[in-house]
Amino acid sequence: MHKRRAFWRNLTRATANDAMRVGVIGGGQLGRMMGLAGLPLGLDFVFLDPADAPCAAAVGKHICAPFDDSSAIRSLAQQCDVLTFEFENASADSLFSSSNVPVWPGKSALLAAQERAVEKSLFERSGIPVAPWRSVDSQQELDRAIEDLGFPLIAKTRRLGYDGKGQQRIRAREDADALFDAMGGVGLLVERLVSFDMELSVIGARSANGDLVVYPLTRNEHRHGILHRSQTVRVARELQRQAVRHLRTLTMALDYVGVIAIEFFATKDLLLGNEFAPRVHNSGHWTQDGAPYSQFENHLRAVCGLPLGRLDSHLHSGMLNLIGRMPQASEVLSLPNTFLHDYAKAPRAGRKLGHINCTAKDESHISPALDALERALGESPGAA
Amino acid sequence: MHKRRAFWRNLTRATANDAMRVGVIGGGQLGRMMGLAGLPLGLDFVFLDPADAPCAAAVGKHICAPFDDSSAIRSLAQQCDVLTFEFENASADSLFSSSNVPVWPGKSALLAAQERAVEKSLFERSGIPVAPWRSVDSQQELDRAIEDLGFPLIAKTRRLGYDGKGQQRIRAREDADALFDAMGGVGLLVERLVSFDMELSVIGARSANGDLVVYPLTRNEHRHGILHRSQTVRVARELQRQAVRHLRTLTMALDYVGVIAIEFFATKDLLLGNEFAPRVHNSGHWTQDGAPYSQFENHLRAVCGLPLGRLDSHLHSGMLNLIGRMPQASEVLSLPNTFLHDYAKAPRAGRKLGHINCTAKDESHISPALDALERALGESPGAA
Repeated sequence: MHKRRAFWRNLTRATANDAMRVGVIGGGQLGRMMGLAGLPLGLDFVFLDPADAPCAAAVGKHICAPFDDSSAIRSLAQQCDVLTFEFENASADSLFSSSNVPVWPGKSALLAAQERAVEKSLFERSGIPVAPWRSVDSQQELDRAIEDLGFPLIAKTRRLGYDGKGQQRIRAREDADALFDAMGGVGLLVERLVSFDMELSVIGARSANGDLVVYPLTRNEHRHGILHRSQTVRVARELQRQAVRHLRTLTMALDYVGVIAIEFFATKDLLLGNEFAPRVHNSGHWTQDGAPYSQFENHLRAVCGLPLGRLDSHLHSGMLNLIGRMPQASEVLSLPNTFLHDYAKAPRAGRKLGHINCTAKDESHISPALDALERALGESPGAA
Repeated sequence: MHKRRAFWRNLTRATANDAMRVGVIGGGQLGRMMGLAGLPLGLDFVFLDPADAPCAAAVGKHICAPFDDSSAIRSLAQQCDVLTFEFENASADSLFSSSNVPVWPGKSALLAAQERAVEKSLFERSGIPVAPWRSVDSQQELDRAIEDLGFPLIAKTRRLGYDGKGQQRIRAREDADALFDAMGGVGLLVERLVSFDMELSVIGARSANGDLVVYPLTRNEHRHGILHRSQTVRVARELQRQAVRHLRTLTMALDYVGVIAIEFFATKDLLLGNEFAPRVHNSGHWTQDGAPYSQFENHLRAVCGLPLGRLDSHLHSGMLNLIGRMPQASEVLSLPNTFLHDYAKAPRAGRKLGHINCTAKDESHISPALDALERALGESPGAA
């Protein structure tokens, strides 16, 4: 009897308006896809975004304000039961001090993702191997780091770097001359460029009570620093075990709630932590069509305190980003086991406008399927 | 090169606002689920519905007007590239005379679905076996029909009947006394109650160029005249062949475009046509989680002139309607391979508020999974 009573929603619910409401900082495609995944769960959405008509506004209300506008965040929080964010450059100070409702993922996760040295230290504390690195705040420190680490190196701005922006390779001494100022005179992280076989990422979702679900490792290919395509890979079990262990230790260290993505440099038997994203992630978009519960649904389940969707199985899957221009829908839709995700954004060079997922029963079919898609889109397959 | 150029959308598309726009008569859950399926295809939506805040308004614009308001339909058509409808009692006259854009499914399909005698004749012309029937417009004709057909019979109003409303069984002579007036003095269809093993339905989608995709037969259980639960069944191949044949002949007769559902009374080796719905159908909701492309997506692909999504495979699936009250989301979401679809409607006795889909690798697991769901919801499994 107790069970049965608990099963039913409070029957005083008289209108549809007492659905749990999720506030999202950012109204881009990630917010839009959260909305599409969350509406069937009975959730509804408010997006805070400075754009006039952000693409997520198709699936929720929209507050038009800068991301760090404290009074807009307060107003968002007043309308919502929980807040989350679709990108890691949200202002942690404005967000966490202005909200009177829970914000997930939490502040330590957001801060760590915003500062590469904090992130690397966190990886190390969590037992995740990383390439040798130094935090550098002057040309002098840069020169010393080169002495310590040798070549080749990569220098990255410690803050606000994404999609490959703010990065410089240092292959030889002369590359480093005056580099600190050339990169803006801001704090840098310098790290050893390691040789690896592939870039892999793992997506997991963690709930407040510590439950964790983990999607299979995904292989990613970037072009011009932007994710170009992803596919699930059946790697050595040991790598997947490492990925799960790293997700577990990292999310425990952060008391993490929500979806998280960790990007790795991988050799046959080792994952080196590169960076993490405290949010749903482009390399997890295949889960919309290849897994029983997508990363978007599991993120919402986690931040709303709902049970996570268990991942008993998945289809072999691939994802191709549509950047700068959109193909004719009719051409994409004529391909079997292919799924179009159009963000309804105006085209602009370098802008992520949509993606195409594909699935197959046999893992070996995914690469050729993605190659065929690229050819149909007039690109040269595999030319990263 | 030609192929490549054709693949890309007109690059003059400068904003997101030139997406293909679909106008839907009706803004209930079927429209809402169309929107959820169509937004990722780059479509957007306007719903015409007299309710203040119909549940589909979460995924599109809303024109608040009666379904048969010609000027509202004109305004809808002016904003849209194509119109469709979510229920078969749309006013065919208002709809087809007021729209200057295509309306799919077409007028003959809508009219046939609105009048049971037209529907039965159409079934017969399409080679779909039906139970013996008579069209009856007076008590005298009713009495004569009884003489012709024998007992037991069922009398149904020929128009505007749905979810079991407007039906009376005639088991013996005395049941028919004054029945014509008792049923409102409106045109009736009287048909022989046939014995059958189960109620099955088939969902298909047909495109303007005659392509047809067909989902597997679904077994349906009704309670109080409302669909209670559905599940995919692996019936004799011959039955699925009959279903495909019937879909093909019926949709050809109607020059049909869109999703259609035909409900059958089935014995081991024969399908008898009961009725059809010129729209997405409750018995096809399992396709959201059990098929690569849902009925909602394929309906939109068809009415928008896009290629249909091929159905190479499907999962064994079940669907349980949530009527009158909603369970706690957390309870439903803790069950594996279970998918909640909340329509965000205010609870009311007898109102469809949502449904739960479930999938399994083994067909024999679906019935027990639905039984377990019913028990968890405090209902008695199988008690139709």
